Amino acid sequence: MAPEALRQALRAFLMERLEALPEREGYRALLLDYPRRGGKALRGLLTLYSALAHGAPLERALPVAAALELFQNWVLIHDDIEDGSLERRGEPALHHKYPMPLALNAGDALHAEMWGLLLGEDRRVLEEFYQIVRRTAFGQHLDLAWTLSGRFVAPEEYLEMVRNKAAYYTAVAPLRLGALLAGREPDGAYERGGEALGVAFQIVDDLLNLTAPPAYGKEKAGDLWEGKRTLILAYFLEEAAPEEKERLLRLLSLPRPQKPQEEVEWLHRRLLQSRALERARREAERLKEEGMALLRPALEALPNPEAARALLGVLEALVERQA
Amino acid sequence: MAPEALRQALRAFLMERLEALPEREGYRALLLDYPRRGGKALRGLLTLYSALAHGAPLERALPVAAALELFQNWVLIHDDIEDGSLERRGEPALHHKYPMPLALNAGDALHAEMWGLLLGEDRRVLEEFYQIVRRTAFGQHLDLAWTLSGRFVAPEEYLEMVRNKAAYYTAVAPLRLGALLAGREPDGAYERGGEALGVAFQIVDDLLNLTAPPAYGKEKAGDLWEGKRTLILAYFLEEAAPEEKERLLRLLSLPRPQKPQEEVEWLHRRLLQSRALERARREAERLKEEGMALLRPALEALPNPEAARALLGVLEALVERQA
Repeated sequence: MAPEALRQALRAFLMERLEALPEREGYRALLLDYPRRGGKALRGLLTLYSALAHGAPLERALPVAAALELFQNWVLIHDDIEDGSLERRGEPALHHKYPMPLALNAGDALHAEMWGLLLGEDRRVLEEFYQIVRRTAFGQHLDLAWTLSGRFVAPEEYLEMVRNKAAYYTAVAPLRLGALLAGREPDGAYERGGEALGVAFQIVDDLLNLTAPPAYGKEKAGDLWEGKRTLILAYFLEEAAPEEKERLLRLLSLPRPQKPQEEVEWLHRRLLQSRALERARREAERLKEEGMALLRPALEALPNPEAARALLGVLEALVERQA
Repeated sequence: MAPEALRQALRAFLMERLEALPEREGYRALLLDYPRRGGKALRGLLTLYSALAHGAPLERALPVAAALELFQNWVLIHDDIEDGSLERRGEPALHHKYPMPLALNAGDALHAEMWGLLLGEDRRVLEEFYQIVRRTAFGQHLDLAWTLSGRFVAPEEYLEMVRNKAAYYTAVAPLRLGALLAGREPDGAYERGGEALGVAFQIVDDLLNLTAPPAYGKEKAGDLWEGKRTLILAYFLEEAAPEEKERLLRLLSLPRPQKPQEEVEWLHRRLLQSRALERARREAERLKEEGMALLRPALEALPNPEAARALLGVLEALVERQA
């Protein structure tokens, strides 16, 4: 099946489910807001292809793929509040469109709907979602704690954070869920291979934030305004002259409203010219190759080779995307 | 078993579980903060007594009772952010002790730990927790939406909100979970009887906020500062002279930092003198009688009469508590 057909099936399933929410005081519209914005549904798509590749039927996989999409949606609502983000998928972040308390509560409500989609699944699938939430929350804690304390971390620490915060739910979990949905034991390669690809995905995400191609739905250089730790900054700091390093640390330690625009523009320009950008790009490429090399043999042995090829294609596209 | 022994068993079980969280960048301390503050563990205690009364062994009930306590803890963290609360259980609210983004994320992490305690439970128990979270989130949405829009609601609407936001998880769910843990069908009376008691509990909570006896762990009259809808205000508005009504609505529509202290003190004094307080007290008493009348016959027929009596005692104490 083509990605567009799968995306539509997933979307129809999820939306029908959410339309059943009570329509009171704007509740349903609030909860539907992020899911309606669309997005690429990459994790849902990966879960569906992985399930098909392992031999599970589409209908069996839809609720679980939809649950992973809901995970992404509620986490984004909360992350946007935590990071002070302004935009999401080309529109204002939910807490800028509605009062923050309503947005926060909507995130909790969607978190509940995520579990609501999983009630009939077996324990292994529930366990996987538990791992997804706890790893992501732990990674997000590290990210926030470093940002709030003004601490800059070495590349290795950055990578540990991203493995928890982004790689697990983006790549490891979809691969594993597909196996579990077919009643098969997830291949051991999914964890390390998925981590490598998921980390590469996040590095590309950080690169896109700085270059912001036309279809990019978030604020250009928003990561600098938010003071987010990225591999690009970690590399830049390793090579920066002491004055530049100090200037950067001073800037990133300021709360967003106190950051002088010209300083953010200086840093943005400086990063775009720097070797750090190219180093990060190469590291993403290297991790992609590493991840694909780990996953290819495992995926090529699966019962549905056509779906497995499509899955490999989407995994590769994670890192090659332009927006 | 005496309530204190059960509380200790519950606490030991929960703390042992949470101690296993990673100790990085203050993560564990943050997640343990609210659970460590203690509190009365009323919902956990009700779940344990209900399970024992229905014939389930204590060890079988501990994870589920602990999960309900975790529910209460993560919801309080998020509610305190949403309501702009200053204190909880006699200490600063979590988002006043730590940066708000870390507190918000800690709530999500404890939400995950709640589900983590339930992975081995059967579908009915998971379904019950799904109902707990979705009803509470919907009730909280109504409460927040009315507060933020400055809308005052009639007593009927207030009661609907409280049934969802507080009564379900406080009284209905513990009763039902006890039955499910013993493999029995929850009695139909638990829903209406538990709702009546749970609403009475919330009315008493709102009364205590105004009178704030010594052991009360929250800010005195904090509800007025936060502009919270209560039955007391709804009654007061029904009977207030037009000037007083207007003065009250003006005050409650202001954001917390803009509320003049003397106006809050005026309203506080006015409410304490008003008939609304006594009406609310009587309504709580009436609901308690109604709830107990519905529940008593069902609970007295259970296989463990001693535990059933203890359960009835804790249910009654929900409404008779002094702090």
